[in-house]
Amino acid sequence: MLDRLGRLADIGRAAGANRPGLGEGEQRAHDLVAEWMREAGLEVEVDGAGNLRGRLPGSEPDLADVWSGSHLDTPPDGGAFDGALGVLAALDAAAAIGAGGGLRRGVTVVAFRLEEGPRFGRGVFGSRALVGALEPDEADLRDAAGTTLGEAFAALGLGTLPAGPLPGAWPAAFVEAHIEQGPVLAGRRAALGVVTSIAGMAGIELEITGRRGHAGTVPMRDRADALGAAAAFVTALHGAAADIPGAVATVGRLDVAPGATNTIPDRAVLFADVRAPDAARLASVVRAVSAAADIAARTGCTLSVSERWRYAPQPMDAAVMAAVAGGIRAAGQEPVELPSGAGHDAGILAAAGIPSAMLFVRSDAGGVSHSPDEHTAHDAVAACLVALEHTLRQLAA
Amino acid sequence: MLDRLGRLADIGRAAGANRPGLGEGEQRAHDLVAEWMREAGLEVEVDGAGNLRGRLPGSEPDLADVWSGSHLDTPPDGGAFDGALGVLAALDAAAAIGAGGGLRRGVTVVAFRLEEGPRFGRGVFGSRALVGALEPDEADLRDAAGTTLGEAFAALGLGTLPAGPLPGAWPAAFVEAHIEQGPVLAGRRAALGVVTSIAGMAGIELEITGRRGHAGTVPMRDRADALGAAAAFVTALHGAAADIPGAVATVGRLDVAPGATNTIPDRAVLFADVRAPDAARLASVVRAVSAAADIAARTGCTLSVSERWRYAPQPMDAAVMAAVAGGIRAAGQEPVELPSGAGHDAGILAAAGIPSAMLFVRSDAGGVSHSPDEHTAHDAVAACLVALEHTLRQLAA
Repeated sequence: MLDRLGRLADIGRAAGANRPGLGEGEQRAHDLVAEWMREAGLEVEVDGAGNLRGRLPGSEPDLADVWSGSHLDTPPDGGAFDGALGVLAALDAAAAIGAGGGLRRGVTVVAFRLEEGPRFGRGVFGSRALVGALEPDEADLRDAAGTTLGEAFAALGLGTLPAGPLPGAWPAAFVEAHIEQGPVLAGRRAALGVVTSIAGMAGIELEITGRRGHAGTVPMRDRADALGAAAAFVTALHGAAADIPGAVATVGRLDVAPGATNTIPDRAVLFADVRAPDAARLASVVRAVSAAADIAARTGCTLSVSERWRYAPQPMDAAVMAAVAGGIRAAGQEPVELPSGAGHDAGILAAAGIPSAMLFVRSDAGGVSHSPDEHTAHDAVAACLVALEHTLRQLAA
Repeated sequence: MLDRLGRLADIGRAAGANRPGLGEGEQRAHDLVAEWMREAGLEVEVDGAGNLRGRLPGSEPDLADVWSGSHLDTPPDGGAFDGALGVLAALDAAAAIGAGGGLRRGVTVVAFRLEEGPRFGRGVFGSRALVGALEPDEADLRDAAGTTLGEAFAALGLGTLPAGPLPGAWPAAFVEAHIEQGPVLAGRRAALGVVTSIAGMAGIELEITGRRGHAGTVPMRDRADALGAAAAFVTALHGAAADIPGAVATVGRLDVAPGATNTIPDRAVLFADVRAPDAARLASVVRAVSAAADIAARTGCTLSVSERWRYAPQPMDAAVMAAVAGGIRAAGQEPVELPSGAGHDAGILAAAGIPSAMLFVRSDAGGVSHSPDEHTAHDAVAACLVALEHTLRQLAA
């Protein structure tokens, strides 16, 4: 397993792993995993979205398969575990169960395409394609080099984007193993966790307008300093989010104009990413953005608040969660329940009505992810393999 | 006067006036003002720093002249009054006094070169050259196009930079009329003011290091958000500066990395420009920067504080200030005393021991400057002309 993770990470390795979705690096990873699927005796297929599927048939062909997997693309200079661990763990479980496993349902190992957002500004492509949730403009999204998503898709020999849900039976259940990408499990000294829900999230842009002025000549009381307002906003929002259990708020981008050291800034544009595990708390943290903007407006600046996107929280399926918890116990661990603050393919399938759950694997190195420093130690990887195999056996039995 | 201000502003007019120092626009302004000097009967000379001087001789040639003037260059898209008003007002006063004015001292009208900082990152060139305060690296400063200051200087036919103080008698006194570039006089409903001192200033860079993380997966309490620390710093510094009378603090530049909306920023670099009218208050506001950094460090980030430059406050000369106040009263106004938060050529001459003072003229439009919106209404311009003529007559008598 660790050797295979390393071989995938070596594809496009720079500071970290570079396998942008619908690009050459992801394709090489799909080719390599397809080879490993064949070695494990799985029936390999590439679906109409370019997703890689490896199937272990069950004894009752009329029953839908249990699916498990994740994605093989990475953000720029990503880590070795994000996505890849979930695909390889599902492959390992299917190989362990084997052709004579005696399970009623088949097991399909899946690698969804283009889960990460950075390349085209929108991710979870393969899972959305599966359930017919691509957007009308999907083929026209462009990457930084000007290539459209449709062109990248066609360049892989995949033809045109699928128009609706992919043909064939949908999964009876879906289990995605994935590193936590956060510090919760490590803080609880737990190797594995059961995801209760995938966070709801909203992206909100703020434009702040103040009054430009000379840094030396305008008394403090006469200023409307756009950065002063932005600072008040950030502090108020961070504080409010900290008071809502499970909610988070991040201002990752802040642009100040004119940006001269001796000029009072009259404009600031910032973007707040807020998330919460359920609808009530998502509404609370979205209200906290407005409240923070009201506090910032006391500086004399004007603020304009625009919600750019909002996704509802996605609860995981209770029965599939129970199967995951059983798998974790079978691995000798106590299952810790936690929400996922990041989006995942499992959220897309769940939103489409497919019973889904996630098996979270402890992130070490402080929970850092989307970074070459991303790390999960051997003990947690080993526990994940035992737990996932047990989970899939139970769901497919 | 207003027509001449308009003709200068038309040189390089885009959104505002564009006459970068030691460039073509400034040169055209110098040529135009030289012509107006000759029309007024002044003896025109260009000194070894390229400064334009127009001299009205006095009756006692052994006495040093009284000088008055300012600069003719502008920042990008600057206003019509900054600098130009001070040169044209001095010219107007010299013309009004006339050759038979019967004054013992001569009056020299001066337009100093390259007062503004933006082109080469360092300003007050002409006044520093006069008193021998150019830096060893002065000729090697580069503008955004890669031209060195030395090349720009030579391209105007001015040869090489002067090596020490310019030859000839220094001014007996220097009076610089200049728009306030702030809202104080307008707030006091005063047309004119006497500058008590030119603010001391320090430029301090802060580098903040936090921990990068996924915007969705790291609980608020586990974060070390570099922008959160920057926000705490800005708020604390603004508050502390507001509590020190006459002090100001501006953070005009803030860069956040990595700058992705879904990533907790782990790095912020910002620049604090702090100013105060005397040494004690400058020390206080510099201490406030360190105190604000300590507050920001409570977010769990580390801050590194580097002072990039510090200039001591420069008190104006009491006798020249008294002459300016007398001039203001002669214009039927009550002189308002105020410090200058901006740097000026008068500060350079004062630091070199030349008795200097400034006549501030009300800025309208909220005190905005370095902007096309910069404005001073006719009444204040008219009062300035009366006051400056009276001041120069008194100093030269």
